[in-house]
Amino acid sequence: MAKSRFEYVRTYEQDTTLLPNTYIVIRLDGRGFHRFSARYGFQKPNDKRALDLMNAAAKQVMRQIPDVAGAYGQSDEYSFVLGRQCRMFDRREAKLVSTFASTFTAHYQFLWAEYFPGTPLDGSMLPTFDARAVLYPSMREVRDYFSWRQADCHINNLYNTCFWTLVISGGLSERDAEQALMGTNSGDKNELLFSRFGINYNNEDVIFRKGTILIRDMGVCTSTSDSSDAAADLGERQVKSRRQAEREEKKRQKAEVAELHVDIIGDEFWTDAGRWIV
Amino acid sequence: MAKSRFEYVRTYEQDTTLLPNTYIVIRLDGRGFHRFSARYGFQKPNDKRALDLMNAAAKQVMRQIPDVAGAYGQSDEYSFVLGRQCRMFDRREAKLVSTFASTFTAHYQFLWAEYFPGTPLDGSMLPTFDARAVLYPSMREVRDYFSWRQADCHINNLYNTCFWTLVISGGLSERDAEQALMGTNSGDKNELLFSRFGINYNNEDVIFRKGTILIRDMGVCTSTSDSSDAAADLGERQVKSRRQAEREEKKRQKAEVAELHVDIIGDEFWTDAGRWIV
Amino acid sequence: MAKSRFEYVRTYEQDTTLLPNTYIVIRLDGRGFHRFSARYGFQKPNDKRALDLMNAAAKQVMRQIPDVAGAYGQSDEYSFVLGRQCRMFDRREAKLVSTFASTFTAHYQFLWAEYFPGTPLDGSMLPTFDARAVLYPSMREVRDYFSWRQADCHINNLYNTCFWTLVISGGLSERDAEQALMGTNSGDKNELLFSRFGINYNNEDVIFRKGTILIRDMGVCTSTSDSSDAAADLGERQVKSRRQAEREEKKRQKAEVAELHVDIIGDEFWTDAGRWIV
Amino acid sequence: MAKSRFEYVRTYEQDTTLLPNTYIVIRLDGRGFHRFSARYGFQKPNDKRALDLMNAAAKQVMRQIPDVAGAYGQSDEYSFVLGRQCRMFDRREAKLVSTFASTFTAHYQFLWAEYFPGTPLDGSMLPTFDARAVLYPSMREVRDYFSWRQADCHINNLYNTCFWTLVISGGLSERDAEQALMGTNSGDKNELLFSRFGINYNNEDVIFRKGTILIRDMGVCTSTSDSSDAAADLGERQVKSRRQAEREEKKRQKAEVAELHVDIIGDEFWTDAGRWIV
Repeated sequence: MAKSRFEYVRTYEQDTTLLPNTYIVIRLDGRGFHRFSARYGFQKPNDKRALDLMNAAAKQVMRQIPDVAGAYGQSDEYSFVLGRQCRMFDRREAKLVSTFASTFTAHYQFLWAEYFPGTPLDGSMLPTFDARAVLYPSMREVRDYFSWRQADCHINNLYNTCFWTLVISGGLSERDAEQALMGTNSGDKNELLFSRFGINYNNEDVIFRKGTILIRDMGVCTSTSDSSDAAADLGERQVKSRRQAEREEKKRQKAEVAELHVDIIGDEFWTDAGRWIV
Repeated sequence: MAKSRFEYVRTYEQDTTLLPNTYIVIRLDGRGFHRFSARYGFQKPNDKRALDLMNAAAKQVMRQIPDVAGAYGQSDEYSFVLGRQCRMFDRREAKLVSTFASTFTAHYQFLWAEYFPGTPLDGSMLPTFDARAVLYPSMREVRDYFSWRQADCHINNLYNTCFWTLVISGGLSERDAEQALMGTNSGDKNELLFSRFGINYNNEDVIFRKGTILIRDMGVCTSTSDSSDAAADLGERQVKSRRQAEREEKKRQKAEVAELHVDIIGDEFWTDAGRWIV
Repeated sequence: MAKSRFEYVRTYEQDTTLLPNTYIVIRLDGRGFHRFSARYGFQKPNDKRALDLMNAAAKQVMRQIPDVAGAYGQSDEYSFVLGRQCRMFDRREAKLVSTFASTFTAHYQFLWAEYFPGTPLDGSMLPTFDARAVLYPSMREVRDYFSWRQADCHINNLYNTCFWTLVISGGLSERDAEQALMGTNSGDKNELLFSRFGINYNNEDVIFRKGTILIRDMGVCTSTSDSSDAAADLGERQVKSRRQAEREEKKRQKAEVAELHVDIIGDEFWTDAGRWIV
Repeated sequence: MAKSRFEYVRTYEQDTTLLPNTYIVIRLDGRGFHRFSARYGFQKPNDKRALDLMNAAAKQVMRQIPDVAGAYGQSDEYSFVLGRQCRMFDRREAKLVSTFASTFTAHYQFLWAEYFPGTPLDGSMLPTFDARAVLYPSMREVRDYFSWRQADCHINNLYNTCFWTLVISGGLSERDAEQALMGTNSGDKNELLFSRFGINYNNEDVIFRKGTILIRDMGVCTSTSDSSDAAADLGERQVKSRRQAEREEKKRQKAEVAELHVDIIGDEFWTDAGRWIV
């Protein structure tokens, strides 16, 4: 059997390798979740069960992939950040994005029955997710990335809260609700909720307004590296012994994954040294 | 909420787009299936239920993603070929590989209970798959790619059949079996099976020896394009009307996915015009 | 001297390798040639010396890089096509584009004095060129690429001929000439040249209207491969002996580079078997 | 003229864009300079005229491309570093490497007669250079990159000094000289030079031993950014006004390019704030 005659086809494989010493953010998005959420009767504007299920699946990803330093989720998306020194799969992009998509998908389905006990999945519409990887050379950009996603959460949730309140409590058609919100700014929307429906937006469930942050609770934070900078990280890498690295990996695996619903745009969250920095 | 202040982080996204007018092969591989198959008691050297489950999941992928022209699977891997004119996700690599990995994973888990009825999955070891995409500019290379995989199937299965026969029927330790096979060629292995165990390898189940080919059974084959060449395909694309294209897509979606276990290294399989060519 | 301590920086090198078995087109463009041509007094709308110099430099590139199958030039740009089996620099993109840019630049400057004898170059404004590589999986696309460039040559030259005739012979300001041509189609422009200036555009120098094609004059054309298709090429590659390949390379190097100014959009040019196909 | 019918070929262009906020190092290498230097009679082991010409060409590159922060050259290679905020050509890799290769080539040839007055260039062997781009996320890596090149310079020059001394002064054949040096370390080589030929290697011309560093002499160094880190740079970018940026660009263009031959592996060179950091 002339195997070798065909092996030349391997030379067509072109692995994209992610630049060393940069943070890797992998963002998953639910595929066709507009239809999916309608099919399985998700509550509007937010379904707490669905968010809890997303968070539970993401925690499992963090437990099984110790390279993940932290994560942020909202709606049907989840972003995982890998440390700049991460060597998983030799930083091959296709391996990384496909593995994260597959692992998240597996846990989401496995945990489904726990969060939607009366609603079995239908094989013709299973939950699936796509993924992408983005590189950031500095911690500043990683912070700004997560600020961007949390700002996005806020903007969407404020809009959706208004929209569905107008439809459900206000009796408007979806088209009329859309019209009513056209051109309004944040202040207008807050005012609309309060004056017409007595709703103080700031009293809405914080998980809806802020999304979910997952971090490893390492006890007293003797972080694997300080928050300073690329140069320092690099120096440290060369100094840190293999044994030390293995000890830290074990510690990370054993650490509980903590779930937070707090502001990550301001400085406070990040001043706890070492947050998401590895 | 200054969303715009953070949006610059999007400029770091670098989508790899796959070269137009080339065939895309997406290969999925089970992650850690050595341990996985041990954990769930797969039979050695081949577990018919596991192969049937792989095939069932792959068929679901083909039903839900009409861009797939055909597929080939063996062991814990599956390769899907997309036509050279495929425009799915604008040919963005990360979207493609993550979506295939996620969709296959979802169906594999969903169908698990049907193929392993007494063996529930354990959340700490769920089946997951990674994926890669490879481009081939001509049909010749696509054929050679699938020949490569089928040759690989043959070589591995012949070895595994010998190995496990020596262990299970011959009573050798795994180490001794490995030693016994070192340096043997195909002829030696066939001879060993026949002379010592009365096994004619060619009578082994054909799904083990040849793997599984999935194609769309389009009835009388008025193929979407002929088997000729890149230039012809390109010309045809410009001629083919949008309506015609939509009709063909529908036809593809409705077509039954047929499962074959035949030789795809020789010419015979490919002379049926239009096989896997889109 | 701890060399090894620093060598890790090599791991950051990420070579982009061009997909095998695809045609490579490398297009060079003059940098800032608007200013450059003004600085050195190029005649308008076309300077025959400048075009001849471009062609002379391109011929030198073809003589020194036998992988080039053919080329097309117009204005301050030149496109070189490399055969689908080309292995130069292991198809590394940066090496290829930088080498073509450097080699063309070197010959352009070296030959300058021959074509612009009274006009020495000034070190503060030397002629330089950038380059890009584009891949085409089939000969059909290579043809269409060159048709695209020749159509571009025609459109620009017709416009420029009108524009400069209006300015030079018609006495219009550049602004007025631009205004006069706004919204005109090809027919209008031909008519304008003929009715107002007695110029039959089709009698303009063919090098201005068609650009320049460079091919290797291999005598009786026993082309290195036929014009058929990717699959055939691939098969042939495996059959062709190393010695045969070397003989052909030598033949290519010895072949005269012929300069043509003909239509390459119609079929006629391409029906001579083997043109630009390697 | 149906231009649009062919324009689809543009969709095959795949520009590689270099990750934002990373340092870009572009390294040029002489093509075939072993033969080139023999053809034009370069002195061995080092030809001062050739090095001076390399440096003169590199200075011209720095004058014409203000994005270059600094450069290092040795033998027939030159490395240019662009600041992490550089936006030249929208950071398109092919444009960058081809433009640097072309610009350096143009100046090298233009200045040739000044440095090799009696040795005219021959059109069949012109000096050409290829180029590559490498990204570094932090200044630490940029430093280590240049340390790597300077260590390489030292190692090669010590070897070459021994080799050519053995050949020229010692009367050995090239083969015997190679044999004599096999397995020797730095100490052995220094000893060989001193004991057998009375040469103190440290008295060799410093340009041979250390190579050449080019920096912009900005007077009192109010560097465009401090040496701290990525985050700081980023913050600064958002604060710095457009006018300020333009003023700095002008200042950079006017600054003299200074030539140094000093150690860049130790800290001293780098503690002058702002060196090569932009």
